[in-house]
Amino acid sequence: MADNDNNKIDIDVLKKMDGLASDMLSDIESLKTPVLKTPLRSLQNVSFNEKEGFFALKGKFKKRTLTASTARSFAQTLKMISLSKGLINTDDLATKREVYYTAYNWLDAKFKNQPESDNVMDDIEAMLGVNREQLGFIPEEKGGAVAGKLTVIDRDPDTKEPLRIDCSKMGSGAYSIPISVEHLRFETDAKFVLAIETGGAFQRLVKHKYWQIANCILISMGGVPTRATRRFIRRLSDDKSLPVYVFTDGDFYGYMNIYRTLKVGSGNAAHINQFFCVPNAHFIGVTPRDIIDYKLPTHSLKEVDVKRGKDALKNDPYVHFYKQWQDAIKLQLELGKRAEQQAFAKCDLNYVMTHYLPEKIADKSKWLP
Amino acid sequence: MADNDNNKIDIDVLKKMDGLASDMLSDIESLKTPVLKTPLRSLQNVSFNEKEGFFALKGKFKKRTLTASTARSFAQTLKMISLSKGLINTDDLATKREVYYTAYNWLDAKFKNQPESDNVMDDIEAMLGVNREQLGFIPEEKGGAVAGKLTVIDRDPDTKEPLRIDCSKMGSGAYSIPISVEHLRFETDAKFVLAIETGGAFQRLVKHKYWQIANCILISMGGVPTRATRRFIRRLSDDKSLPVYVFTDGDFYGYMNIYRTLKVGSGNAAHINQFFCVPNAHFIGVTPRDIIDYKLPTHSLKEVDVKRGKDALKNDPYVHFYKQWQDAIKLQLELGKRAEQQAFAKCDLNYVMTHYLPEKIADKSKWLP
Repeated sequence: MADNDNNKIDIDVLKKMDGLASDMLSDIESLKTPVLKTPLRSLQNVSFNEKEGFFALKGKFKKRTLTASTARSFAQTLKMISLSKGLINTDDLATKREVYYTAYNWLDAKFKNQPESDNVMDDIEAMLGVNREQLGFIPEEKGGAVAGKLTVIDRDPDTKEPLRIDCSKMGSGAYSIPISVEHLRFETDAKFVLAIETGGAFQRLVKHKYWQIANCILISMGGVPTRATRRFIRRLSDDKSLPVYVFTDGDFYGYMNIYRTLKVGSGNAAHINQFFCVPNAHFIGVTPRDIIDYKLPTHSLKEVDVKRGKDALKNDPYVHFYKQWQDAIKLQLELGKRAEQQAFAKCDLNYVMTHYLPEKIADKSKWLP
Repeated sequence: MADNDNNKIDIDVLKKMDGLASDMLSDIESLKTPVLKTPLRSLQNVSFNEKEGFFALKGKFKKRTLTASTARSFAQTLKMISLSKGLINTDDLATKREVYYTAYNWLDAKFKNQPESDNVMDDIEAMLGVNREQLGFIPEEKGGAVAGKLTVIDRDPDTKEPLRIDCSKMGSGAYSIPISVEHLRFETDAKFVLAIETGGAFQRLVKHKYWQIANCILISMGGVPTRATRRFIRRLSDDKSLPVYVFTDGDFYGYMNIYRTLKVGSGNAAHINQFFCVPNAHFIGVTPRDIIDYKLPTHSLKEVDVKRGKDALKNDPYVHFYKQWQDAIKLQLELGKRAEQQAFAKCDLNYVMTHYLPEKIADKSKWLP
């Protein structure tokens, strides 16, 4: 099953590559100038609506025609597509950094620096409408950690035999999400996923087996979730129809950089948001209202925090869409304070587990969209 | 067994606390002024020799006598020791951040900010000669990831039943090291541990099951290893008498910040180096000599890199001790270049696995101490 699914994705990607290459070939054979067409990647070319559930491309394109001055980037694009084809056919992976080094042997098509190489990769991703991982290209970043009521089904790289990884049997440790997650399958009878900002808060919940008490899956994001972590949560949520409750610090970084990126994606990588967004994510806390309701210890907002909040009100299509978020951000700016996940330790070290999370999860009216 | 070992550590720590408290009590009862004595924590108070194998304290102390002006920090120290005692007795943990918040209820002994709280914690650690994790205090940081020929034996937090975690059965994922590792035991027939700087290089070796080919345990450090990762590698290396081969980028950050910290510790936390150093660590690459021998793609050293190299030659007791390191650093400064782990992708994506690592591990004469 998993292998069939993967083969299908791989075959689709290979077909798209072949289509692009044969279009170009027939252009050349009929003496037309070949053109590469890529969606414009910028905030000006994205929109948000609730039905789609992610920052979607509006449909502006940039076209690059083969000329003397574009010959080099044309060659790089085609060489990189060919490298990706080789990776898919041999079931191998290459990091962005490795791709850059591989091109050392491409003579005039060698990259000047990694940003140049990454940019070509992003263009190919957007051009083919697939995500980088489906091309066999993986980021350097480390994935998140998982504990609780979930069995991940992977496969042995050699024998392709299925491997069952029971995330409830990791003791005080956890399952570390691999950099590419496309081939994973899931088994679970959990009721929800709890995605947690900090390793410290995650460790407390693991230590006390909160996942057993609450019948859930715990995922540590370790700050802004990596692509692999976002994709893992998305696939898990889709496959098992699980809601994802997000628990971050009560600050604009937690609301926007972590939660909003997880839920709808970001502006500068809009062409991949459809694969990485988690439409079924809900923000349970720490909300500005929690700071008041739970009398949490706080820190004053710094200038940079205030700027981040004002920016969100002014420029963020997601915030524009939801009055609740506008109200929440305004309340926080009025309070002039922020509070952390771990601030509940003021009451009692385990208060977060015995009171806050159960109360919050039970009362939808106190979540943010 | 593990429980007995842990109980023994816990009992030792509790004894030290009781000793400190009863000394203070008898001082007070005999109308003497109580004193807290802490080892001086700075580079001026550390030395290196090969036999000890870590940056060791030279034996300078600071003494704090109870006066009107020290009353607050005295109270904080005693309250925090009492908190630690509670954690040990209830088998619980608290992050540094949670400790800071817990003290919100300590009235006049409340901390002004977390650095103040962390500083008291460091003092207690040094005073009692234990590591923070043994006090039940854990850092926020995320641990590293492990794959390969290792079974970690943890225990169920509720039932205390042993839990066996087979790191060879994680597929493309890995076992994520918990924040506290004191209670873990290990089973392995691997010949060595390979500690790797980047997640990308780790993922390639996992994908191709290099651990099976080389009969080893792979650990991803993700940059400078966290305390948990250092302690995990140390305990594993000690318990199973395994050598640890360290594979980082070929730059001063890899040599000093990552490798030297893993092997002998750092200057500003010298009181805990004895628990975290890995005496059996060896640096296999990327060495400055590799840059020449393998004709690696390089980047020019920046000013900050050059400064880091010169600083190491001038100030680092570890570099002072080993002529090989002095020569290596001088060579790199002459080359004016640095090279990354992934630079081997120039030859072939899997060259690092098929040629570089096997050749390097087989030839001790090319390692650095």
